[in-house]
Amino acid sequence: MTTVSKDAQSADQTATAPDPSPDLAALAAALAPGALLTDPAGVAAYRFDFTADEDAGMPLAVVRASSAADVQATVRWAGAHGIPLVPRGAGSGLSGGSNAVDGCVVLSLERMRAVEIDPSTRTAVVEAGALNVEVKQAAAEHGLWYPPDPSSYEICSIGGNVATNAGGLCCVKYGVTTDYVLGLDVVLADGTLVRLGGQRIKDTAGLSLLKLFVGSEGTLGVVTRATLRLVPAQQPPATLVATFDDVADAARVVVAIGARLRASMMELMDQASINAVEDHKPMGLDRDAGAMLLAQSDAPGAARGEEIALMEQLCSEGGARECFTTTEPDEGELFVAARRAAIYAIERRGTIMLEDVGVPVPRLPDLLTGIAEIARACDVEIPVVAHAGDGNTHPVVVYPPGDAEARARAAQAFSQVMSLAIRLGGTITGEHGVGRLKRDALPEQLGPDVMALTHRIKHALDPQGILNPGAGF
Amino acid sequence: MTTVSKDAQSADQTATAPDPSPDLAALAAALAPGALLTDPAGVAAYRFDFTADEDAGMPLAVVRASSAADVQATVRWAGAHGIPLVPRGAGSGLSGGSNAVDGCVVLSLERMRAVEIDPSTRTAVVEAGALNVEVKQAAAEHGLWYPPDPSSYEICSIGGNVATNAGGLCCVKYGVTTDYVLGLDVVLADGTLVRLGGQRIKDTAGLSLLKLFVGSEGTLGVVTRATLRLVPAQQPPATLVATFDDVADAARVVVAIGARLRASMMELMDQASINAVEDHKPMGLDRDAGAMLLAQSDAPGAARGEEIALMEQLCSEGGARECFTTTEPDEGELFVAARRAAIYAIERRGTIMLEDVGVPVPRLPDLLTGIAEIARACDVEIPVVAHAGDGNTHPVVVYPPGDAEARARAAQAFSQVMSLAIRLGGTITGEHGVGRLKRDALPEQLGPDVMALTHRIKHALDPQGILNPGAGF
Repeated sequence: MTTVSKDAQSADQTATAPDPSPDLAALAAALAPGALLTDPAGVAAYRFDFTADEDAGMPLAVVRASSAADVQATVRWAGAHGIPLVPRGAGSGLSGGSNAVDGCVVLSLERMRAVEIDPSTRTAVVEAGALNVEVKQAAAEHGLWYPPDPSSYEICSIGGNVATNAGGLCCVKYGVTTDYVLGLDVVLADGTLVRLGGQRIKDTAGLSLLKLFVGSEGTLGVVTRATLRLVPAQQPPATLVATFDDVADAARVVVAIGARLRASMMELMDQASINAVEDHKPMGLDRDAGAMLLAQSDAPGAARGEEIALMEQLCSEGGARECFTTTEPDEGELFVAARRAAIYAIERRGTIMLEDVGVPVPRLPDLLTGIAEIARACDVEIPVVAHAGDGNTHPVVVYPPGDAEARARAAQAFSQVMSLAIRLGGTITGEHGVGRLKRDALPEQLGPDVMALTHRIKHALDPQGILNPGAGF
Repeated sequence: MTTVSKDAQSADQTATAPDPSPDLAALAAALAPGALLTDPAGVAAYRFDFTADEDAGMPLAVVRASSAADVQATVRWAGAHGIPLVPRGAGSGLSGGSNAVDGCVVLSLERMRAVEIDPSTRTAVVEAGALNVEVKQAAAEHGLWYPPDPSSYEICSIGGNVATNAGGLCCVKYGVTTDYVLGLDVVLADGTLVRLGGQRIKDTAGLSLLKLFVGSEGTLGVVTRATLRLVPAQQPPATLVATFDDVADAARVVVAIGARLRASMMELMDQASINAVEDHKPMGLDRDAGAMLLAQSDAPGAARGEEIALMEQLCSEGGARECFTTTEPDEGELFVAARRAAIYAIERRGTIMLEDVGVPVPRLPDLLTGIAEIARACDVEIPVVAHAGDGNTHPVVVYPPGDAEARARAAQAFSQVMSLAIRLGGTITGEHGVGRLKRDALPEQLGPDVMALTHRIKHALDPQGILNPGAGF
């Protein structure tokens, strides 16, 4: 891992040295009362996102904005003093994208939580700090649905979802965050507030700036508000659970199913994940199975049963040990909850480094086989859970807490898994973002020309390099 | 209309004057044999896209590239000589995006037509000049489907679809071009070929450069190849046709249906369009109806009938004059073909200026009422066809050929319709692009800050301003 200060310096070669004694009183005066936190204990609570990376820096101060005007004032102040800004939503990021850098101001959007549903346009206008679950609940009151569903949907913010182009379990049929963002309010590096898009569904006027900001991890601007597309409420899904001797067999069945129908969920857990969940909260999963496939259909009417039957047939033809189906949503939800809890269950086995690699779906068997080899070679555990229908997997490198030598082996495995995914035509991150933890691996994926293009855009939008330096690229 | 030479000059303030005697022999030598056209008659055939704008300029030469290397050589040569480049696919654009500017080189991708389907990843790797229909046909051979379906799908190229972020009739359920672009090969203004994305479905590594190039109308780079996402073949749709006394009633029913289900098509024709189609090719449409709604469901199994029944009920509750449904795909296709032919039928009534304005769906009645008022005030006909489920409409301003005074009134109406859409929270273009014809209206929609941001990105990627000057923004 590189040090944070090096990250911050290298983010933009034109970054100027920060003002050594910036006028925090002026910042406080420009903000709503109580927005600025400077006491060390309060500030320290904003050092980390969920990665709790020990290399995270110490912020100078924290701004808890309650309006776009607060965000603008903070960005202008930071620009005037050359102070790095680290935007932050709910702090649930898994790649260190909102871990602090030394001397930065953490710009938290947690107080900006308004959610307004417009049933006539089927849109939600949402402040960046609102939680994903809050949007889902507000939409449900109008018979509408906001599909993107990261496993962390109860605790992650829409701003963070936009910053990382977050995915989830339903993406295999319903797409990712960018597919639902119709409009964004963004504060640019010079403090200008721009409004992109709106409540219209199709719009190709001008450059796709809206899409450029989605997934930009706070490096090009600070998103303060999003207009999100809603769809009619999902039909209650039917669920299939199938076990396989071998994880590669399960992966092949995923490919076969995808060629025939669009399942609304297609998740995979390998043996180590199954056992981690059983250890954590026993629910009678088959500990001997090499892999478990969890699929759903939310097709309307009788088609739901037909899709489940076809998936069952393909599992059977693909060598499933056992296959169980249910049309009871509550029973299905038990298995989904187990899948959602898998990362937390695995976390109880040690300290973790969470991957988010993706490959073209037919390369899944090669990826899973290769990960097992890396685990053996580096002498670490790497349980895998996957949004298999999208080829997006979460290998979890586990090592004993406090063991520096084991940590080094884990870091090696973490890096090798990313290289493997790249070799298989894949990506180092499908939905969590590059953040600070995967930044060193990005050039291997993108190559020098795309990295140069990336830096040209960054420089055009943030010439001082104050926006989330060290994150994203 | 501004003159083209002014457009070319104002595209980028740093544009240098073009070399008055560029070395075309050197360009020819850098290309595959036969790629360069310089004879006046051959070159003149590449002046216009479908808009046939009389202000289009005369190219210096035309390059018909047969490889990315040809494209790179052309871009490098143009950069060295300061010559503007106008990229061109099939020339079916409806906004003048590939109309020539004086002294430019038209860079045609028409010879780059390879289409490769990979059924295991469900992707198509497609050269930019391949037609949309060729991708659909190649996918269908593997039981797969490429959804985006502009009405011109039989004659438009994938490169043009990417350049404009093209839509179509199925977008209301299946989304637009950007939703299916997984990868792009792009030649940048300095001749570098970058490869963005790939065959993976979820990928959030680095900035969303892929999405930035979609819809950029050849102003940021030249797309030479696209990797497109395919989905399982569509189920045969059932069709509903309903007529209404008033177009606003029909628009309200569109809103009501959208709140309950996701139709796979939701098109609307007003009285003038219905009559234009009947005049052109009689098929017994109700000439007295104020509007006709054409909807389809492709839901699987019995759900298809349920969706059609629900739509029928909502039409009836919404005051439909008549309602007809069919599960016969051929019968339904007759109505869809009538809808697709509407623009061509309207074109027989005079010279046209084709709009592509969109509004939030509930604003459709206001838009349609307002367009009727503009038609009266400007004394022109403005029949309307619409992808109503998306709020995307095609008002067609019709005026007598060769009548300069009528043309001026038509241009006024064209401009007023765009302003109306903007006032209703809409866009000047949902799927055709800004091109050269709508460029003057863009600042009114985007505002000065977003225009400035757009120019910063343009300048970062094309500092000489050689890529499609005068188009897009």
